[in-house]
Amino acid sequence: MKIAVDAMGGDKAPHEIVKGSVLAARQFHDSEILLIGDEKAIQRELDSCGAIPKNITTHHATQVVSMDDPATYSIRQKANSSITRSVELVAKGDAVAVVSAGHTGATVAASTLHLRTLKGVRRPGIATPFPTRSGVCMLIDVGANIACKPMHLFQYGVMSAIYSKCILGLKAPRVGLLNIGEEDAKGNELAKETFALLSHSSLNFVGNIEGREIFDGKADVVICEGFVGNVMLKFAEGLATGLLSTIKAEAMKSFWSKLGLFLCKPAIAPLKAKMDFAEYGGAPLLGVNGVCIICHGRSDSRAIFNAIRVALQLSKNKVNEHIISELEKFNAPATVVA
Amino acid sequence: MKIAVDAMGGDKAPHEIVKGSVLAARQFHDSEILLIGDEKAIQRELDSCGAIPKNITTHHATQVVSMDDPATYSIRQKANSSITRSVELVAKGDAVAVVSAGHTGATVAASTLHLRTLKGVRRPGIATPFPTRSGVCMLIDVGANIACKPMHLFQYGVMSAIYSKCILGLKAPRVGLLNIGEEDAKGNELAKETFALLSHSSLNFVGNIEGREIFDGKADVVICEGFVGNVMLKFAEGLATGLLSTIKAEAMKSFWSKLGLFLCKPAIAPLKAKMDFAEYGGAPLLGVNGVCIICHGRSDSRAIFNAIRVALQLSKNKVNEHIISELEKFNAPATVVA
Repeated sequence: MKIAVDAMGGDKAPHEIVKGSVLAARQFHDSEILLIGDEKAIQRELDSCGAIPKNITTHHATQVVSMDDPATYSIRQKANSSITRSVELVAKGDAVAVVSAGHTGATVAASTLHLRTLKGVRRPGIATPFPTRSGVCMLIDVGANIACKPMHLFQYGVMSAIYSKCILGLKAPRVGLLNIGEEDAKGNELAKETFALLSHSSLNFVGNIEGREIFDGKADVVICEGFVGNVMLKFAEGLATGLLSTIKAEAMKSFWSKLGLFLCKPAIAPLKAKMDFAEYGGAPLLGVNGVCIICHGRSDSRAIFNAIRVALQLSKNKVNEHIISELEKFNAPATVVA
Repeated sequence: MKIAVDAMGGDKAPHEIVKGSVLAARQFHDSEILLIGDEKAIQRELDSCGAIPKNITTHHATQVVSMDDPATYSIRQKANSSITRSVELVAKGDAVAVVSAGHTGATVAASTLHLRTLKGVRRPGIATPFPTRSGVCMLIDVGANIACKPMHLFQYGVMSAIYSKCILGLKAPRVGLLNIGEEDAKGNELAKETFALLSHSSLNFVGNIEGREIFDGKADVVICEGFVGNVMLKFAEGLATGLLSTIKAEAMKSFWSKLGLFLCKPAIAPLKAKMDFAEYGGAPLLGVNGVCIICHGRSDSRAIFNAIRVALQLSKNKVNEHIISELEKFNAPATVVA
């Protein structure tokens, strides 16, 4: 199985991307990793990685999408970017999946344009693993679609439930709708109409989920529109980092609290690991005709390794085929919801 | 100045509400606190508070809005609730402000219905103080209005800026728009149109604010629609509580980390104080014709005391008059934005 990796995307590209790809190539012998980007830069990194596995190849791309480029600009003016080239390999059938830690908007735009959506899917959505007290939940969408309709949100529920079943091994993932109250009739029009669609579906719908219930792990899948999900995800990142760094800065002010922090380290470690996005292997863009994994901009080699692992799992477990057949069931006349 | 306090609202009502009111009556001699609710229950609490200050009186209300009541139900079926009675006192001019830790939706509904909006204000919004690394920012709206239009969001900016000037003493509060990216053209239609309105105003508009920048204190006022604000606020509460309790639970597992946590206490204390909503004195519902302070459901006597303090400040500083005259300026033909 060939995985196209955007070697130029991310704050630590190409160094960490190439390193992670080499690790993955060594581990997953049935895979072939295609590194896309500036050939010379990639080669320099490969040279520093020791013996290069045979299942790793390089594909030249002359351009790089910068974080300041608008997504539409990247599509129109950077047709030879590492992101677009990677996606095109999947579109042409030369790879089964694309992994990128580059510009999220550009990756979503290129994937939607070149891969198109899966049969029956209205809009793709980014499903991000979010740590909870007891494990992890999938938050979908976190920014692929900021003009959501009830059917988009409903389909996000269907797609994420399949992901949770196939990849996380959950038997009947609990699907919740992010809302401003628990009661059925709560929320704006979008939330109310989505609630109705979910209630009449065969999903294990557990109803509305309030913001405070996410960390409590009340659902395995939390559906929200892209604007809300994006704002919330970044907010959580800022808050968690801010809280921990504030405690650390305060603790450094005295010998005793500094010692205290040192002694607390084993207690903070599991939490830090839980909050470490690198463990989760990126966020799949669900609903496109191909596998696309969007990684955090700060991805290191471990994050890239894990993203490639998830990309392989998604392909092997035929998640997209499951999505198509599940949506066909929902769209069949007998189960259509008014 | 008379302040109507809903004695029956909140998880710790009437005990903590009455206690906080007595503290406020003792401190603010120029005020008169009207306690609204079940007379006997209030009297029992007053009896346990020692000498009752003369500037505290009781007003009977036979009903209580329960947290499970839909807001519309509370208006239609509980016309004699402590919330509605409190608001009515302000509407009739028998009090200048209402303070309630009860059902937020019911308080917003009763205030909007009985007090009406200020001249020029399209929709009231709840402005919540949110702790940042370096101080506090006002997040508006956090749930009063879940069908926002650009003009509503724009007016939230104007009203919160005045609040920050009059109550927090800021000279030129930095107003930011919560969005999914920093660039001007980012976001959904609502965000883009609001951005245009804010850019052309005389506010100290600092542009789009991403979720992760809130805790960093990049703005003194962060504007968002009620749905997003509500979800985010509750999410932050759940996350902050969850993170700290997870660290604590982990630390309790070994003697050394338990000791470490004990030594860290002085380092965690300032953060805990910063996160303590009771310090901030509730969230003003800005834009109604009267002063309305919405307190957290878990409010204790200190939170109620602080809410009464803020209510008095808002009245004394004529915040509503400032809002009206500022909006008149914005609505004047010369400054109208297409």
